[in-house]
Amino acid sequence: MGKRIGKNTVLMENNPCVKSFASVCGKKEAQGPLGNQFDKIFEDTTLEESSWEKAESRLQAESVNLALEKANLKTQDINYIFAGDLLNQCMSSAFGLRELGIPFLGQFGACSTMAQTLFLAATTIEAGIANYSVAVTSSHFCSSERQFRFPLNYGGQRTPTAQWTVTGSGAIVIEHQNNPGIKIKHATVGKIVDLGIKDANNMGAAMAPAAAKTMQSFFEDTKTHPSEYDMIFTGDLGEVGSNLFKELMLKDGFHIGENYNDCGLMIYQKEVQDVHAGGSGCGCSASVLCSLILRSIKAKKWKNILFMATGALMSPTSSQQGETIPGVAHLINLVSE
Amino acid sequence: MGKRIGKNTVLMENNPCVKSFASVCGKKEAQGPLGNQFDKIFEDTTLEESSWEKAESRLQAESVNLALEKANLKTQDINYIFAGDLLNQCMSSAFGLRELGIPFLGQFGACSTMAQTLFLAATTIEAGIANYSVAVTSSHFCSSERQFRFPLNYGGQRTPTAQWTVTGSGAIVIEHQNNPGIKIKHATVGKIVDLGIKDANNMGAAMAPAAAKTMQSFFEDTKTHPSEYDMIFTGDLGEVGSNLFKELMLKDGFHIGENYNDCGLMIYQKEVQDVHAGGSGCGCSASVLCSLILRSIKAKKWKNILFMATGALMSPTSSQQGETIPGVAHLINLVSE
Repeated sequence: MGKRIGKNTVLMENNPCVKSFASVCGKKEAQGPLGNQFDKIFEDTTLEESSWEKAESRLQAESVNLALEKANLKTQDINYIFAGDLLNQCMSSAFGLRELGIPFLGQFGACSTMAQTLFLAATTIEAGIANYSVAVTSSHFCSSERQFRFPLNYGGQRTPTAQWTVTGSGAIVIEHQNNPGIKIKHATVGKIVDLGIKDANNMGAAMAPAAAKTMQSFFEDTKTHPSEYDMIFTGDLGEVGSNLFKELMLKDGFHIGENYNDCGLMIYQKEVQDVHAGGSGCGCSASVLCSLILRSIKAKKWKNILFMATGALMSPTSSQQGETIPGVAHLINLVSE
Repeated sequence: MGKRIGKNTVLMENNPCVKSFASVCGKKEAQGPLGNQFDKIFEDTTLEESSWEKAESRLQAESVNLALEKANLKTQDINYIFAGDLLNQCMSSAFGLRELGIPFLGQFGACSTMAQTLFLAATTIEAGIANYSVAVTSSHFCSSERQFRFPLNYGGQRTPTAQWTVTGSGAIVIEHQNNPGIKIKHATVGKIVDLGIKDANNMGAAMAPAAAKTMQSFFEDTKTHPSEYDMIFTGDLGEVGSNLFKELMLKDGFHIGENYNDCGLMIYQKEVQDVHAGGSGCGCSASVLCSLILRSIKAKKWKNILFMATGALMSPTSSQQGETIPGVAHLINLVSE
């Protein structure tokens, strides 16, 4: 059984561990600095499907199937799948995974969803109610643009603070493991923070305060300090958001130094790939976690890291009604022992 | 720690119990047979807000605040809130609950969400990582109609198989409890089932096969029989769906008899209130569970019941793309000891 530490953090004591992980991505992501880290690349981002939504659904099915294959597991071995995406009614997840026959729990945390699914998959292990649970998320540039902003054919101009939604998906199989492995040790689930940002093209700024709040809470609860971790990753704050995040942390006495990076800044080569403030989307933190990050922990390059995915909980309807953008961030502490 | 029973059911052994519950609803629901069971009624379904979406958000905030009040708890006592609704990007949940400052995990299971949030809130107790968790969902007739079908002003005709989305919300506080209480004893999380129904005005038929599959699985895993339960409730199959559900169960040897009812059939007086096939929406099963059902268990009228909420995981986009409607159903066994 797990236990609570401080105000808002939990320590998992039943050893929920990463059994396997897989990532898939599109052409633009393959051309970025992490290109050789992904398990499967789709040069044709339609994946030969008839709509962008169906293409995104396929991304999720692909990453889950790859993760199961690596774990040498069949779909019937999996007790729960926690899946989410950015589309209305979590369409990519439901339609992408409906053939698999795995008990399905749809998640929505916007771009924070990868940390959310990972937390809940680990919780089912911690509760003793699952042998294997899967966490998966996806996003697709083309389905996101048309749903949240403009259809691609419109040819809208992107603002300097805009981020580029990643076409990709990441999936992780979690199991109870006594042997050394990659363990989900601590988790801090975030509260919604809304400081009044309204610009849907500046989501990094909308998410940064939530990110700072969750991470401060984690450091206070665990009585640790940023420098104690091999690496600290945020999900997709991008350039604007991650600078703001560092500033907010510093104001509260936490210096976020050289051991920090943002998945949204890691996945593209900013100057060359014209992505403005960086990558974003559920698939951003998912595909970076399920490639470079978990590979590096597996290779013992890093032994103790923080992964915090951040989400902007707005919808086109809320923006049209003049609402501000609520942010949320969930933190997972992964350790290799 | 909990344990798995059979293929797909879990037994919770750390006593996750209902500490308090509350329900709120609109005018039409108040005029129905359960009118005197709800905690708060809004005769004006705008709740004096400027949009239907904001009105729905208020419904969620109201039911959560009422449940906390009854439990004599403050928002800071709650470790997690599992919240969901039918709107794009779970808008009612995020905007309704953002002021509360409770660690937030957005859920999407369409109309199955009340069982999903209840299962996950119980799981955090089972895992020992929460003292108190809240499960809440909502729906609103007007926000749903305009998102999934037509704006009200259009004055579209409703088909005979159409269901009426409930304006309402239900919230439950879950805690670990050694003393006698209302316990979440078993849970069966469902797989997605899609038999090819395409009619968004006949969601009962789309959900019935998933409902039958989950419930059969529960009876097989627990080696029990429908007649052993005081009552069996489905979420919102409505008239068409619940008849189909009973037929499917009978075909597999399970006679669903007099101890069965459907929240969608209970909430309105069908002949008088012109709701066609019955009520639906996340708020349907939530408000019936958090009024009549839990009140009756608390009063020891029923001691052992099954509550299974059912969801149709389609989106307007998937329907426009010619997709069929995937169904899902999650079952919770509530016992009073």
